[in-house]
Amino acid sequence: MDAAEFRRRGKEMVDFVADYLENIEHRRVYPDVEPGYLRSMIPSEAPLEPESYEDVLKDVDRVIMPGAASPACTELETVMLDWLGKMLQLPEDFLAGTKGQGGGVIQGTASEATLMALLAARCKAVKCVHESDPQRSEADIISKLIAYTSEEAHSSVERAGLIGGVGIRMVATDEHFSVRAETLEKMVAEDKAAGFIPFFFCATLGTTPSCAFDKITELGPLCNAENIWMHIDAAYAGSSFICPEFRPLLDGVEFADSFNFNPHKWLLVNFDCSAMWVKKRTDLIGAFKLDPVYLKYDNQESGLVTDYRHWGIPLGRRFRSLKLWFVFRMYGQSGLQAYIRKHVELAKVFETMVKKDKRFEICAEVVLGLVCFRLKGSDELNEALLKEMTHLGRIHLVPCKLRGRFVLRFAVCGRTTELRHVQEAWTHITELQHAASREFHTMW
Amino acid sequence: MDAAEFRRRGKEMVDFVADYLENIEHRRVYPDVEPGYLRSMIPSEAPLEPESYEDVLKDVDRVIMPGAASPACTELETVMLDWLGKMLQLPEDFLAGTKGQGGGVIQGTASEATLMALLAARCKAVKCVHESDPQRSEADIISKLIAYTSEEAHSSVERAGLIGGVGIRMVATDEHFSVRAETLEKMVAEDKAAGFIPFFFCATLGTTPSCAFDKITELGPLCNAENIWMHIDAAYAGSSFICPEFRPLLDGVEFADSFNFNPHKWLLVNFDCSAMWVKKRTDLIGAFKLDPVYLKYDNQESGLVTDYRHWGIPLGRRFRSLKLWFVFRMYGQSGLQAYIRKHVELAKVFETMVKKDKRFEICAEVVLGLVCFRLKGSDELNEALLKEMTHLGRIHLVPCKLRGRFVLRFAVCGRTTELRHVQEAWTHITELQHAASREFHTMW
Repeated sequence: MDAAEFRRRGKEMVDFVADYLENIEHRRVYPDVEPGYLRSMIPSEAPLEPESYEDVLKDVDRVIMPGAASPACTELETVMLDWLGKMLQLPEDFLAGTKGQGGGVIQGTASEATLMALLAARCKAVKCVHESDPQRSEADIISKLIAYTSEEAHSSVERAGLIGGVGIRMVATDEHFSVRAETLEKMVAEDKAAGFIPFFFCATLGTTPSCAFDKITELGPLCNAENIWMHIDAAYAGSSFICPEFRPLLDGVEFADSFNFNPHKWLLVNFDCSAMWVKKRTDLIGAFKLDPVYLKYDNQESGLVTDYRHWGIPLGRRFRSLKLWFVFRMYGQSGLQAYIRKHVELAKVFETMVKKDKRFEICAEVVLGLVCFRLKGSDELNEALLKEMTHLGRIHLVPCKLRGRFVLRFAVCGRTTELRHVQEAWTHITELQHAASREFHTMW
Repeated sequence: MDAAEFRRRGKEMVDFVADYLENIEHRRVYPDVEPGYLRSMIPSEAPLEPESYEDVLKDVDRVIMPGAASPACTELETVMLDWLGKMLQLPEDFLAGTKGQGGGVIQGTASEATLMALLAARCKAVKCVHESDPQRSEADIISKLIAYTSEEAHSSVERAGLIGGVGIRMVATDEHFSVRAETLEKMVAEDKAAGFIPFFFCATLGTTPSCAFDKITELGPLCNAENIWMHIDAAYAGSSFICPEFRPLLDGVEFADSFNFNPHKWLLVNFDCSAMWVKKRTDLIGAFKLDPVYLKYDNQESGLVTDYRHWGIPLGRRFRSLKLWFVFRMYGQSGLQAYIRKHVELAKVFETMVKKDKRFEICAEVVLGLVCFRLKGSDELNEALLKEMTHLGRIHLVPCKLRGRFVLRFAVCGRTTELRHVQEAWTHITELQHAASREFHTMW
């Protein structure tokens, strides 16, 4: 949608809202639909090619308005997470369908998804230990639980451990910054020998520092054998799995108990929208289900209703699935794939330019849209370069540390990023390098 | 703003967004402002009278655009929570100001605010016990922690206890459904004698079932003396405290460690926006602060910067303070007070009509916009009446149980609710009562 169409459509939408509010008294306050009404009214998969905005808007009238905010909000979410799951070729186990035990939910952020997974795993582990040893107190069991994640994992995983009140250990990575089964296996054996209870492993596909991938094809069987809940955090990289050529990066997901990525990061959906799937929804729901009278309603136990208040921390929820519905249909699967591919190609262009320049080095394999690079030389030199970049405000890079070294991260992630932007960015960086290097040598 | 103005302003806003996106390449990618730049650019209090939309929009250009998404998003939030805190006459301790130790934050929902308060209290209690008894393990301390809340409190409080892995006890209420200090004091004494550690009390101002108010003027001193963190959940009722005549309901807040209410419930702000204040931000931050390199930035330790990622579960955050800024200025404090007063008056009108009809009874004191009532007679009779109401879809009531009895709740909370709506609702209810009563007696 170009700016001209955005202006036109945006203004139509303002009228749509005003018309709705002006005529609201003619509507029922409570919808008159049967539970599960929505699924049969729309296709079971996202369209391959883009649809017209008119068609989407017609469906808002036809599909959403009769179901009002509730249950349309909930039912569209369940179906959209099925659409997205199919786009990623997630195993059937993760889909809700009409009879599935799994399903998807929109969380606000990956931090919340990780926390919910850890809490569900904690509850499951406590129950499991309790069954074999009924004398043992819940507090004693929790005090022995150990979670694991990569030393390269996002800080929110450690934070989830703090919130959940369980121990968390960081697993060392191999030369590609990936966690390997061998390493985790040793830690699990050590901990079990010391009387601890390994219960949760958060794998990362696409780490924040360098977009590294834990070897979940090895780790999954280990976790399954050890009765460890495997959660996969693919916050950034997950969007790419809609492309067949990147889908192998997700191989091993069949061993996971839960999986999460952020369409708001790289799938053209506005913040916030973090998609999470579980294989057994009862694991998630069982952990925190409370049913006071003021939250009871008809059909609650019918099996046709997904009750998302048991799936996350907040009780109230926004109608975030509309964003997914609009984006999937306006772009089509092909349009979204093209968007991902373009970014990866632009990252490769940037990588090639860095590689050709002997003053710089690449610091991690470039798999998707992230290029980790640095000036050959000291951290201070690289820090000075970044500082000057930030000061001038033409491009914005977020750094990281890899094996203790200060590294620059060039991320292609803007909706409107073109080849010329990447080329201009590289020219800008090399020009600054001259200046920074001169200044640095004067200073030191 | 009427529908005609909404149409005009909405369309201007669409153009504003399109213009911004069309010219985005001429802007810096990173703002060039000093930390704390925003506070001095706007007044220190919300306006008493409404301002014009033009003036607000001019300030978006003048105040927000130079600070872009960050730091404007954070800084406006801090100042808006100070504005709102002053509207509620919160004690100075809860305000951030430029040197305060407290301050406010926008959470998504009251459930999240309660959870954060409980987690901060847990962390503080563990540290405190650990200091006097360094041998004791964290797990052992946590296993002895006990939280308290009213038997009438929202289910999210119990849920926070489950998530935090601590014991939670429900405190019985008096004849007004209020928790009294005497009752809590006994429970605390019992629990201490049994070796437990009372550490958290969640008081409710305006309970979900009947809008009852715990006696925080009594409970506050008790909690302070017992080193129990007192959190106040005023999710619904909190908005009313902007009116001087309702502010006494908040007396005792000076004893609290944290306080929360939902402007999205009753202050004309769209979901989600739950305002939370703490007296000592270090209590909240201390619990979960983690600082990886990719989240570091200049001025991090300067004291001028509020780092909200340590204040809640999510890391990413939306620009929710804009909603507050627009609403405060478009309505003015006087307009918001008038809105609250109107709803309370309409609830009183409904209460009067119920009281005049001998077939019905009022079930709890009507303090704000909620009327708890029922048909004199069996629960089944009232359930039949509600079922018919929901079926017809003209009005929507959410029931509750009070002292085991099924009670209907009439809540005045719509932006456009007028006297005639309340009168029509009552006529509708009484007409249905005839029918339901007839049908019920036939059935039974």
